[in-house]
Amino acid sequence: MYVVILAGGSGTRFWPLSRKSRPKQLISVLDGPTMLQRTVERVLPMQPKRILVVTNRLQAEETEQQLARYRSLTPIDVIAEPLGRNTAPAVGLAAAIIAAHDPEGVMTVLPADHYIRDDDGLRRVLQAAAHTARNGWLVTLGIVPTAPETGYGYLEADMSLRGEGPFPVTRFVEKPDRDTALGYLESGNYFWNSGMFVWRADTILSEIACLMPELSTALATLSFNSDVWELSDLAGQIARIYGTIGSQSIDYGVMEKSDKVQMLPAGIGWSDLGSWSALPEVLDTDEQESVVVNSSAHIAIDSRRCIVSGNSGVVATIGVDDLIVVSTGDALLVCPRERAQDLRRVVEELEKRGLSQYL
Amino acid sequence: MYVVILAGGSGTRFWPLSRKSRPKQLISVLDGPTMLQRTVERVLPMQPKRILVVTNRLQAEETEQQLARYRSLTPIDVIAEPLGRNTAPAVGLAAAIIAAHDPEGVMTVLPADHYIRDDDGLRRVLQAAAHTARNGWLVTLGIVPTAPETGYGYLEADMSLRGEGPFPVTRFVEKPDRDTALGYLESGNYFWNSGMFVWRADTILSEIACLMPELSTALATLSFNSDVWELSDLAGQIARIYGTIGSQSIDYGVMEKSDKVQMLPAGIGWSDLGSWSALPEVLDTDEQESVVVNSSAHIAIDSRRCIVSGNSGVVATIGVDDLIVVSTGDALLVCPRERAQDLRRVVEELEKRGLSQYL
Repeated sequence: MYVVILAGGSGTRFWPLSRKSRPKQLISVLDGPTMLQRTVERVLPMQPKRILVVTNRLQAEETEQQLARYRSLTPIDVIAEPLGRNTAPAVGLAAAIIAAHDPEGVMTVLPADHYIRDDDGLRRVLQAAAHTARNGWLVTLGIVPTAPETGYGYLEADMSLRGEGPFPVTRFVEKPDRDTALGYLESGNYFWNSGMFVWRADTILSEIACLMPELSTALATLSFNSDVWELSDLAGQIARIYGTIGSQSIDYGVMEKSDKVQMLPAGIGWSDLGSWSALPEVLDTDEQESVVVNSSAHIAIDSRRCIVSGNSGVVATIGVDDLIVVSTGDALLVCPRERAQDLRRVVEELEKRGLSQYL
Repeated sequence: MYVVILAGGSGTRFWPLSRKSRPKQLISVLDGPTMLQRTVERVLPMQPKRILVVTNRLQAEETEQQLARYRSLTPIDVIAEPLGRNTAPAVGLAAAIIAAHDPEGVMTVLPADHYIRDDDGLRRVLQAAAHTARNGWLVTLGIVPTAPETGYGYLEADMSLRGEGPFPVTRFVEKPDRDTALGYLESGNYFWNSGMFVWRADTILSEIACLMPELSTALATLSFNSDVWELSDLAGQIARIYGTIGSQSIDYGVMEKSDKVQMLPAGIGWSDLGSWSALPEVLDTDEQESVVVNSSAHIAIDSRRCIVSGNSGVVATIGVDDLIVVSTGDALLVCPRERAQDLRRVVEELEKRGLSQYL
């Protein structure tokens, strides 16, 4: 099995810990290893033939550094996109590289910035998915929902054939409102769209050929060395390709239209960790029902349900509840948990004031 | 005129900016110069003969460093107490040193950590006070109250003799409750006890001799070099004296009992800056009615009336009002303005957990 990790994302939802040059996947949101490193460590026990990490030029150096410690364990290639074009080009590029060497190679696609509590469970599902993928299916992992989440897209599955799956996907649905999400949760045949996929390289490439001909044509121009894994001189070709293709997600470009999609349910304690507010869903809380990361100590006087990320120092809160407090060397955020979505307004204001050193 | 600056205080009310080795007088509570430096700069235009700064051993080195820039302008002596004994021994020691050189020298005693808006006004009052002091009075400055403060002690003055003063002090009163303070404010003859004094060295020493004989006896054992301002070999004598004397304030030890006390009213924009919550009383507020110090930028999204002290970086607050946010390199405080008095509980907790590096 090949593992493709999509690590080129950017975002502001973990500011100030995350910055333009160090987005969520490259930071230690949960103490210890970064999200990218956790993703790699999650698949290493499966002994993948190779790991391909697709990132962008701005983050390539930091990505290489964070991966260095694993190079003695498995071959890792870092592919730097010249600019972001959403997931379809990244997936297509990785598939083309794998197919040049091993056309029927099974590839697992994983986002680099998701949380998974049950790593063993994930690996079991991926092994089952690989079995289905070998027969020419596009397998997507559907997370068994545990709450009426309005922040996720959903997959509707045809579960008339009982068993553990895979199940055909009958519909992709966008983020629902609360009542709709409650209905999905009760129905038992709706699952969170995780963005984790397993398929053969040739399967996805032929689906791209059918459904995204522009991307397919561009990818077909790639020529490889005799040693396909010598990727260092691909940069020029990739830059040329990315200059011609549009931005598109693999969900919209292929998954929602293909008739080869199957879903495997996964109850693995998954979260996309969409903001600081998500931390209490995935981390143990302390006696004050607070979550503390990256801090040597939290002194909580009459403070409950806080989310604290310190700067390896001490954070003292007095008489504040449900507050997000994040400190880095040069920037500080204080924000109620329910206002986490307004972090983008801080970033807009920093841009407006020309304070780019904090972005 | 000699100026004696009492700079040996300690306290926790500006944690985490203030620490045991850098208490309030040695930090930049209001941006720019430290409180001690502001105190020195306030009296420099009066061209004092000398400035004596009384501090303690823990803070002596930092105190010397902060004063270095003024040594070319006026002679400055730093006297390090071996341990804190409240204000009476510090004042007595300074008076003894001055008297050995210039018995009738007028000395002004100023706390190192107070805020004064109207420096010119202060200097005018001190000049008037020096005039009164030359005639053998103990002059204390009474701050014209501008609010029914419950955090200050008050002086009751006999104002039957009209004019600008000085007025006899008829009573010293402890911190009053709110209703009492309102009465004081309306009465017109109550003033805030500022802890600023002017007197001749021989006057205060003879009052100490009458009212604090133990301290007087101890001070009488001091022997000076022929050049009295060569203070470096006084340390041993001071250590011996401090081993024998008790802790006492000059207010309680002398001022409340002496019949030589006169008060001069001072309307000079004074505050003792008792806590972070006092900052809006003395600093201009911004468009969000917030006060920001030590920060390159405050990004305030739906945030009003905050008190922010950053670490030269950016501080972002979203949807929080009336909050104190203080960040230093290694420590962070978040606390509602009305809970500032509970800062001592943070310090207690740090002590309890053995986190002395943050104290």
